[in-house]
Amino acid sequence: MAAWGERLAGVRGVLLDISGVLYDCGAGGGRPIAGSVEAVARLKRSHLKVRFCTNDSQKSRGDLVGLLRQLGFDISEDEVTSPAPATCQILKERGLRPHLLIHEGVRSEFDEIDTSNPNCVVIADAAEGFSYQNMNKAFQVLMELENPVLISLGKGRYYKETSGLMLDVGAYVKALEYACGIEAEVVGKPSPEFFKAALQAIGVEAHQAHG
Amino acid sequence: MAAWGERLAGVRGVLLDISGVLYDCGAGGGRPIAGSVEAVARLKRSHLKVRFCTNDSQKSRGDLVGLLRQLGFDISEDEVTSPAPATCQILKERGLRPHLLIHEGVRSEFDEIDTSNPNCVVIADAAEGFSYQNMNKAFQVLMELENPVLISLGKGRYYKETSGLMLDVGAYVKALEYACGIEAEVVGKPSPEFFKAALQAIGVEAHQAHG
Repeated sequence: MAAWGERLAGVRGVLLDISGVLYDCGAGGGRPIAGSVEAVARLKRSHLKVRFCTNDSQKSRGDLVGLLRQLGFDISEDEVTSPAPATCQILKERGLRPHLLIHEGVRSEFDEIDTSNPNCVVIADAAEGFSYQNMNKAFQVLMELENPVLISLGKGRYYKETSGLMLDVGAYVKALEYACGIEAEVVGKPSPEFFKAALQAIGVEAHQAHG
Repeated sequence: MAAWGERLAGVRGVLLDISGVLYDCGAGGGRPIAGSVEAVARLKRSHLKVRFCTNDSQKSRGDLVGLLRQLGFDISEDEVTSPAPATCQILKERGLRPHLLIHEGVRSEFDEIDTSNPNCVVIADAAEGFSYQNMNKAFQVLMELENPVLISLGKGRYYKETSGLMLDVGAYVKALEYACGIEAEVVGKPSPEFFKAALQAIGVEAHQAHG
């Protein structure tokens, strides 16, 4: 295995995923993945610029960073790119008022968004919030719109919790897409815009980055 | 508008849908659609053979027929083709033991099916049963199988209840298909086998039928 210096020649920045890379989420907050706390510390001591880039849409950035710091990671809120703030920017730019099908843990990210008389649906990893009743409500809002707009925070198929595999937002997006005959707009990975925004935040071009 | 006799020249049998055609389901059982009770009676008085062909997978045939008789329809259980009995036949033929993600109302149709140590998932319109927990359980069963088999009773997008539009089984099938990277087998409309079985039951060929 080549030394870091050799493998990363020409690389100026690193994007790090969080869930499943730094830690496995689960009951009691989760647990760090072996070696990841030290790896982050080592990257930060290096000449490389580091940005954390997550699709986690169950928690606000503040809560996520708080949890990671408890687990021993050296991380601050302004080092994180996550889909909720990116979505809020899109909603404001386009004058969209969302019906929110989201986890309570991330609701604070949308505090400044007008949700009256919705003209779109924003869906994120709502977990237990993906009840039949809540899915139906989101579906009915979409069906009442002339041009239904569905914005999804990520399109993950599933993720691993300490208790086992869990369905992710992408599965529920497919359900609404099929029922309404529409296609969702994805904010978050794997959207190129999302990665670009993360790199922009650390002043690195795509060819100078390592994911 | 041409008279029935002219429009139906060469037609020997008629397949009738039930939900949304004979009645709208909803709170308190539902209500007949205007003119449908008389239309069924008229068809039955004619020379045409009649079969009721439904994707309704919330109720057993017995319960469905009981409800329709209460609403005034002349119908008996052995005149109905529905996906649950067709699914049971497939399960038996292929030695499949299902994990059932179904409505309690249709569970009795599966009374004789071995559901121990599941080697497939059967999904039907579970309505409130489509909780996050139940969806995850079905997902986890599929992910533990070497060759995941998902059998779906119909693939409807949504249906109308008296209280509004409701997501149908097809939406939840799409969620599991996407999460597992598989394709479901559909029993019920629009599967040609399902229509053939309905016609066979009244001894009519496809070209002699009217839907």
